[in-house]
Amino acid sequence: MKIALLAGDGIGPEIMEEAVRVLDALRLPQVTFWRGDVGGAAYRRHGHPLPEETLKMCRAADAVLFGAVGDPECDNLERHLRPEQAILGLRSELGLFANLRPAAAMPGLEDLSALRPEIARAIDLLIVRELNGDVYFGEKGTRTTPGGQREGYDVMAYSESEVRRIAHTAFRAAQGRKGRLCSVDKANVLETSQLWRDVVVEVSAEYPDVALSHMYVDNAAMQLVRNPGQFDVMVTGNLFGDILSDQASMCVGSIGLLASASLGEQQTEFGTKGLFEPIHGSAPDIAGQGAANPMAMILSAAMMLRHSFGREEDAARVEAAVAQALADGVKGADLGGTAGTKDIGIAVAERL
Amino acid sequence: MKIALLAGDGIGPEIMEEAVRVLDALRLPQVTFWRGDVGGAAYRRHGHPLPEETLKMCRAADAVLFGAVGDPECDNLERHLRPEQAILGLRSELGLFANLRPAAAMPGLEDLSALRPEIARAIDLLIVRELNGDVYFGEKGTRTTPGGQREGYDVMAYSESEVRRIAHTAFRAAQGRKGRLCSVDKANVLETSQLWRDVVVEVSAEYPDVALSHMYVDNAAMQLVRNPGQFDVMVTGNLFGDILSDQASMCVGSIGLLASASLGEQQTEFGTKGLFEPIHGSAPDIAGQGAANPMAMILSAAMMLRHSFGREEDAARVEAAVAQALADGVKGADLGGTAGTKDIGIAVAERL
Ligand SMILES: CC(C)[C@H](C(=O)O)[C@@H](O)C(=O)O
Ligand SMILES: CC(C)[C@H](C(=O)O)[C@@H](O)C(=O)O
Repeated sequence: MKIALLAGDGIGPEIMEEAVRVLDALRLPQVTFWRGDVGGAAYRRHGHPLPEETLKMCRAADAVLFGAVGDPECDNLERHLRPEQAILGLRSELGLFANLRPAAAMPGLEDLSALRPEIARAIDLLIVRELNGDVYFGEKGTRTTPGGQREGYDVMAYSESEVRRIAHTAFRAAQGRKGRLCSVDKANVLETSQLWRDVVVEVSAEYPDVALSHMYVDNAAMQLVRNPGQFDVMVTGNLFGDILSDQASMCVGSIGLLASASLGEQQTEFGTKGLFEPIHGSAPDIAGQGAANPMAMILSAAMMLRHSFGREEDAARVEAAVAQALADGVKGADLGGTAGTKDIGIAVAERL
Repeated sequence: MKIALLAGDGIGPEIMEEAVRVLDALRLPQVTFWRGDVGGAAYRRHGHPLPEETLKMCRAADAVLFGAVGDPECDNLERHLRPEQAILGLRSELGLFANLRPAAAMPGLEDLSALRPEIARAIDLLIVRELNGDVYFGEKGTRTTPGGQREGYDVMAYSESEVRRIAHTAFRAAQGRKGRLCSVDKANVLETSQLWRDVVVEVSAEYPDVALSHMYVDNAAMQLVRNPGQFDVMVTGNLFGDILSDQASMCVGSIGLLASASLGEQQTEFGTKGLFEPIHGSAPDIAGQGAANPMAMILSAAMMLRHSFGREEDAARVEAAVAQALADGVKGADLGGTAGTKDIGIAVAERL
């Protein structure tokens, strides 16, 4: 099990250490950890947010555990040198086209949500976001209009095969859950969405056991506020997925607890190669203080055990240990508690 | 005062009648009402959702009062014949580039929001959405990839002058409110957004009294759930505005009460020519039953009096009458009450 650890910026290094502590406590056979630079930290050392060595290491690894990137001091760099480009580069270079973002209420933590407790309590959804296409990776630039003005442009596009593979991922995910899939698009305005919808409908013929519905993205943003409990699996493109998955996470209330997996087609010996990261960011304001909650990072490691290494049992053990720690009152400042980064890591490891 | 009334589909005709009742009750001098077909209703009578006669009438009018379009029976028509194309056509043909969508908590109605009452109560924001550009109106279509696959595409773009004029609208709106403007984009990924941000910053030099901030759209979707009370005016492009303004409306909870204005550059004798519509849709499920709440339609008429006819006093009178009716318990089913469409229209008219 070759695991690339990319801690990154801000609180990344601190929370990564606790994820490693928990993985160590599992006493897994034959784990090799590699450490690589990424983000603003990598830019400072190597002049690039995603150095060639790091990319090479990630290509050779079975899984990438990713902390966070983002550094206010790098905001004025040219776009291709900014920390965020590292994660975009990894997604595309490693062909990680499927981003899985579960958002589920945590029993006892409903009060953290801005939604009413009875609405927040019902949240148990999975957003499947396409991660290699859309307006993120189309042709883009600045051009001059016939009238002599600057114009910025970005081409949004999806091809059949891109939609088909993410649709299969989503239908299979729905089969393993409550059997309901909602595809989100803007087919009343966008040709990209019309193709998306047509292909999703085609693929649905292979999954008669999944109930498929379609929703416009503006309505989906409303429904995620009004009644997020109505959703099981949602599938959508890169841009809408970026917006809706962050919105859904915030509806749960405890973004310090939410993990994500980004998977491609490449298989490891025991599963699917992937990149695993908490959905929260680098939180530069609290970096270096030992105040960050590492639970989302630890739960990302659990997702890695499940998806890339076929170790469902270990994944479930880690998740149970986190839940137990929470039940025992081990809470970071983000959850209204006082436990520090290290305290939380140790508490989870002890409960394994 | 030449007012084009486009009732449209579903509940459109019922709620339009009540808006007209309220306008009549104001005994305005020299009002001419013209009625035109639009949406699915127009398609059935004329073979097109935005017939030439309707467009001509709207060009000649000082303001357009718009009900709603959308008809499930038209969902399988070719895109250019679907009801939604009528509103897109009107926006572009009339040059209505600025969509103003106020979203504010209604005292006593906080319980209708899915957000906790203390969070919902703080909402008082205005979304300024650009309405004539972005991926809505760029080149779009289906093409074949080199590999022989179908691919849908849509070009997202903004030119300097398009950003500049909506920025001015937004800065001026902020001057008339709490002096804070948040521009929402995705400048870490999109060149269109980078140009947007650069131009907004340029324009800000002319408004030293407005505090400008920038936010990525994914974060904005989170913040609108977490703490919508932080926002005063938000300005954003057509696509992000579509998503965020619907989300913000739902945060308020009572979308049956929210109105919108779409304004262009053309001046009338007393103000700015515009189109005014409720933000809710055609609600085909309750159409024809006299069950729809016409308050958002009536409040749209108030926005028309203010923006297109400079009748601030009459606008405020209508708004006060709606508030009084609500305070007196006149509530539609959407607000947990039993009043029908006509009851509500009469109740508001009586309170003028
Ligand atoms: C950092 C940024 C480029 C990225 C994205 O937009 O995909 C982030 O928001 C995410 O969702 O992982
Ligand atoms: C009907 C549709 C084309 C329209 C839009 O996307 O602009 C609607 O959602 C709106 O916000 O007015």
